[in-house]
Amino acid sequence: MKKYKIAVIAGDGIGKEVMPEGQRVLDVVASRYGFALDYDELPWSCDYYVKHGSMMPADGLQQIRNHDAVYLGAVGLPSAVPDHISLWGLLIKIRREFDQYANIRPVRLMPGIASPLANRKVGDIDFIIVRENSEGEYSSAGGRMYEGTEREIAVQESIFSRHGTDRIMRYAFELTRRRARKHLTSATKSNGISITMPFWDERFHAVASEYPDVKTDQYHIDILTAHFVRFPDRFDVVVGSNLFGDILSDLGPACTGTIAIAPSANLNPERLYPSMFEPVHGSAPDIYGRNIANPIGMIWSGAMMLDHLGHTEAAEAVVRAIEAVLQEGPKTPDLGGKASTKDVGRAIAEAI
Amino acid sequence: MKKYKIAVIAGDGIGKEVMPEGQRVLDVVASRYGFALDYDELPWSCDYYVKHGSMMPADGLQQIRNHDAVYLGAVGLPSAVPDHISLWGLLIKIRREFDQYANIRPVRLMPGIASPLANRKVGDIDFIIVRENSEGEYSSAGGRMYEGTEREIAVQESIFSRHGTDRIMRYAFELTRRRARKHLTSATKSNGISITMPFWDERFHAVASEYPDVKTDQYHIDILTAHFVRFPDRFDVVVGSNLFGDILSDLGPACTGTIAIAPSANLNPERLYPSMFEPVHGSAPDIYGRNIANPIGMIWSGAMMLDHLGHTEAAEAVVRAIEAVLQEGPKTPDLGGKASTKDVGRAIAEAI
Ligand SMILES: CC(C)[C@H](C(=O)O)[C@@H](O)C(=O)O
Ligand SMILES: CC(C)[C@H](C(=O)O)[C@@H](O)C(=O)O
Repeated sequence: MKKYKIAVIAGDGIGKEVMPEGQRVLDVVASRYGFALDYDELPWSCDYYVKHGSMMPADGLQQIRNHDAVYLGAVGLPSAVPDHISLWGLLIKIRREFDQYANIRPVRLMPGIASPLANRKVGDIDFIIVRENSEGEYSSAGGRMYEGTEREIAVQESIFSRHGTDRIMRYAFELTRRRARKHLTSATKSNGISITMPFWDERFHAVASEYPDVKTDQYHIDILTAHFVRFPDRFDVVVGSNLFGDILSDLGPACTGTIAIAPSANLNPERLYPSMFEPVHGSAPDIYGRNIANPIGMIWSGAMMLDHLGHTEAAEAVVRAIEAVLQEGPKTPDLGGKASTKDVGRAIAEAI
Repeated sequence: MKKYKIAVIAGDGIGKEVMPEGQRVLDVVASRYGFALDYDELPWSCDYYVKHGSMMPADGLQQIRNHDAVYLGAVGLPSAVPDHISLWGLLIKIRREFDQYANIRPVRLMPGIASPLANRKVGDIDFIIVRENSEGEYSSAGGRMYEGTEREIAVQESIFSRHGTDRIMRYAFELTRRRARKHLTSATKSNGISITMPFWDERFHAVASEYPDVKTDQYHIDILTAHFVRFPDRFDVVVGSNLFGDILSDLGPACTGTIAIAPSANLNPERLYPSMFEPVHGSAPDIYGRNIANPIGMIWSGAMMLDHLGHTEAAEAVVRAIEAVLQEGPKTPDLGGKASTKDVGRAIAEAI
């Protein structure tokens, strides 16, 4: 029986509550489909930082670099550890060092969830955001001058390489051409961000010329966010920079009613390093400890992990079980129900 | 009788169609309230560029720097003139050189317009976006290396000065404390944009300490866009950087049903230079020439101009006339009606 080694990092806050439900569902589907998941549970988190002075051990990345995947709950507890330490010392560190340059976030209106958009029904919103996940606006190059004085200046570079831009474009085009609508939208702002965004557009057009079968268009990020609200049915795949992809992948799920169920994959498409699967939501310290966090983002991210491992049918079975439970199973309070995190996890496991 | 000298730049595309309606309404309200507007009509536009090789004459800014205000339609015709020429040679040039560092954009759900958000009614959405309009992500510092090769890199600086950041914060706090809810939200992304955004947060907190009467909070831009869709009633004033303010001021109006009616003011609060008033929408070449463009963004921007000139009552009369016509007057096709640009302009002028 095929066995996969999974690095499990529950992390902080509700990450610790939703992770067991993700594992519960994965175990059921694995045994159903004849493979096994061997979890390596790692306590890396803000708690770990408070005890050891770092978010993970010095050789943390070595410990997991031969694992088949990383399954991550949520990172960050701003009241205890500053974001730049917790996020950059764990989440962004893994994304960067394992060259997980493609962040994939499906946006789908699911049954049983009311969209905040008027008159939208299941089937109307179903697209994928492909976010560049390694460079762009998230460079850590820059600094301050005249610190602490009236003349103080903070400068930060946005850095776009052809290498980094072309590979995410290619990933997006390859994904798009496998879909029915074959329609790829690029998020830009070349009318205002006058150096890096025209470069982004150039590379989009250059790579597009290799994919004549894919229909393309582009919108500036300002009007694109407006279109997400007004015409979400127009999108199939949207490719964006690190920052624009980040924004669109919170806004998109919000248009489908909740970011609590939204999944994401941080992929190293070349498979030189493990890829990482995490819900879009954060550690939500405000609801942590009450066992009411919605585990669906975690569980759906698990489905994306199975898909990445080659178990497409098992992945689809998980998504179907999520849909079934959303339609008529227990719901956590964020979706208007009274169920606990565990209730929902169990219901999905049973629906497999 | 007090007479104001207004630089009128209709610009491109539908800018040329909506501008006369703005002037029509302004003239009616001016004569009603006992002042006059003297228009200096300037043909600066992409057409002008095609004839003269620049978007405005070399001494263009001198020509208008003693005017009381600039009233601008729309700029840009990407098929004829590249954006970096048209926008940076006119729109952004005026914003920068007249130090119009505060871009103010009200977001209000108006009567007679269906919000794309379910179950939202007039009164539920009523906030103001204060956008930093002079620096930040729109710096033109940066460039390319290894151009045309596989190793090509494009770099652009985001530059935030304490001078530039503090003054927009102060503007936002002053505005907020004059409002009923006294609630200011800062748009940030300090968990990902790790140098400039923590600086932005620092300045927000520093300036906040001078305004203990104002309630503050902050959200990362990704979740903030989600909150615009899910909880638009929570906002009173939102302050954002050049880029984040730009995004939020298209998304906000989209949540109120249309960006076609959204107005904006580019203010030089110190009044060393004229301020500029323009609708949020662009030149819309796709509908230009059919006389169906919605003139309300232009007209409402005119109301903001009157307010800036000190004619608050006249400004309020224009907004009331807009509301009356939206409620039961003629509508352009974008709002589901059959009226022309002129029909709507005339109806609002009559409703004054
Ligand atoms: C046209 C463009 C450069 C401009 C901007 O981004 O400032 C526009 O989107 C706006 O919001 O005024
Ligand atoms: C926590 C934060 C740094 C992160 C990001 O911006 O990448 C998050 O918003 C995400 O989308 O994964």
